Amino acid sequence: MWNHTTSSNGVNLGNMDEIRYKAIGIIYSEFTDKANTPIQGPFAKNAKGTVELFTEYAEGLKDIKGFSHLILIYHFHLSDGCSLISKPFLEDNQHGIFSIRHFNRPNPIGLSIVKLENVKGNILQIGDVDILNGTPLLDIKPYVPLFDTKLNAKNGWVGNPHLDMVRGEAGEHGSE
Amino acid sequence: MWNHTTSSNGVNLGNMDEIRYKAIGIIYSEFTDKANTPIQGPFAKNAKGTVELFTEYAEGLKDIKGFSHLILIYHFHLSDGCSLISKPFLEDNQHGIFSIRHFNRPNPIGLSIVKLENVKGNILQIGDVDILNGTPLLDIKPYVPLFDTKLNAKNGWVGNPHLDMVRGEAGEHGSE
Repeated sequence: MWNHTTSSNGVNLGNMDEIRYKAIGIIYSEFTDKANTPIQGPFAKNAKGTVELFTEYAEGLKDIKGFSHLILIYHFHLSDGCSLISKPFLEDNQHGIFSIRHFNRPNPIGLSIVKLENVKGNILQIGDVDILNGTPLLDIKPYVPLFDTKLNAKNGWVGNPHLDMVRGEAGEHGSE
Repeated sequence: MWNHTTSSNGVNLGNMDEIRYKAIGIIYSEFTDKANTPIQGPFAKNAKGTVELFTEYAEGLKDIKGFSHLILIYHFHLSDGCSLISKPFLEDNQHGIFSIRHFNRPNPIGLSIVKLENVKGNILQIGDVDILNGTPLLDIKPYVPLFDTKLNAKNGWVGNPHLDMVRGEAGEHGSE
């Protein structure tokens, strides 16, 4: 068992069992049932949504309009707890939780790359939304192709069921 | 001022001022000074690092070896607090915090896409590391090109100083 205040390399980690965040806004979407919420944007058929950033953070949106895509980091507020081995969307096989995007993670943090379609004050209109309605927002980061696009990355276990689903049914998003 | 337990749309948000996470591991790197830590992997010249996942989570690494890149989500433990307007690495101009990757965010959550080079038990050897030594790890997600590569994404304000730096000095990483 680890002593979580000192790592095996002797680095002082402070009180890391007490990392506290707060919602900075809410994500709204058409998805009200977590069983039917697509796990990733390419499955979402350009579903629309809205980010309501709490007004006290609106100043932080300066210059965001120039980006076509945003990385949203959010809290899986309906997570059922943690399963280290789990079955992803559309799959029959189980995988380690760090090999999939399932919400039952040790820390229930979600990440989606969405299209930024419009900004009005503290409200963002977004597309390619795969996020449950009412989800608490933790952070917004710009999607920067130079940093975030890895053209030669390998897909791991993610295979034909996923690829066929996206190519066959999600239309234009399959090529992104 | 918002009442953060009920949004303007009347969705019950629960007690969102109390989102608590815990470190699930530690990221080690050669970067010991936050002023000199590259903000993004393409600036890092394939700097090497190690993720020490606490052993109680090691089972969750099943199948991760098939992925060439991972998304690491971590806590900026040396964040100085929040500045809604800030200056990014290599820039003279200020931008909204949600348009940049700076660590002084409302929730100091960091995100990096790193190369996965080797896995031994609960230890991951990683490359393209732009993370401060001793950083608390919150989550690992597989980088899936189908989900995470947006070929036509626009770079926003991110312009020549960044692009020249990467292309001129980071060598092979500039083309990723």
